[in-house]
Amino acid sequence: MFEVAISPAVNDDEAALASPFVKCLVRLIRAQDSHGSWDGKADAELLADFIVSKEQRRTIPIIGDPDPDVLWRLDKFYTAVALAIEERSGLMASPMIEMSHEGFGRVLFTAGRLVVLSKTVRDVHRFGFETFCKLAAAGTKLVDDAIAAIDAYPEVARA
Amino acid sequence: MFEVAISPAVNDDEAALASPFVKCLVRLIRAQDSHGSWDGKADAELLADFIVSKEQRRTIPIIGDPDPDVLWRLDKFYTAVALAIEERSGLMASPMIEMSHEGFGRVLFTAGRLVVLSKTVRDVHRFGFETFCKLAAAGTKLVDDAIAAIDAYPEVARA
Repeated sequence: MFEVAISPAVNDDEAALASPFVKCLVRLIRAQDSHGSWDGKADAELLADFIVSKEQRRTIPIIGDPDPDVLWRLDKFYTAVALAIEERSGLMASPMIEMSHEGFGRVLFTAGRLVVLSKTVRDVHRFGFETFCKLAAAGTKLVDDAIAAIDAYPEVARA
Repeated sequence: MFEVAISPAVNDDEAALASPFVKCLVRLIRAQDSHGSWDGKADAELLADFIVSKEQRRTIPIIGDPDPDVLWRLDKFYTAVALAIEERSGLMASPMIEMSHEGFGRVLFTAGRLVVLSKTVRDVHRFGFETFCKLAAAGTKLVDDAIAAIDAYPEVARA
């Protein structure tokens, strides 16, 4: 590998923050900021709470109701996936999120008569990603899978 | 029309209670009766609370949380639809019911990658049917629509 002047992790973070999925997520979060109090904040700062290290994960209890802030982030994450799907396919993916208060649940996105995304989620209490890279990769994978489903059954997605 | 010895309404009720959808519903309800205390009850008695006349509807307030018994009946109704779909198509329709506590919501059934049923529900507080006939007709229509969708996109329903 080549030597790099700045740390590769920083470079990775920059690439992750520039990915279309993360841009959707940032846009959604900034849209909540009706008073402009986050205008001076960098994207990385706004997304800071999405990053949960392995050590942090372990300290979060998975009993009791998930923290409302975690549920808010989960909702924003999946809404950003829907938004990115719409950007790429022109089809509106309508999300349905079902969550038990024990932190288990199911996420289902449909477009027309097609299920574009179906995912069970667990340990919602600990929702988060180790790095910006992993956040970007997870979101982008969901969007890619959904686009592949739409490409496989275009007429169903428009039914 | 021919003259009938017994009232046509009674005949209609009998036909409704004999419909495959209503039979599914009765089976589901009887499955809840682990102590056999409803063994002596007729099907019509078990389903009595599903029947809400126009006058009764009007007296049910639509503010506040819907009655838990109403939510139970709503759940049984849609689960019976799923069961009847499975009986006819051999495919398991997995239901997802999202309900706000104001009584608005959405019901979504999927089989494979196909949305076999998508319905918004409102005024859940007043969920019920005027007659057994209307109960049978409403359930049967949902099942028919779902089967039509499966027939239109068989490979998606099995994807």
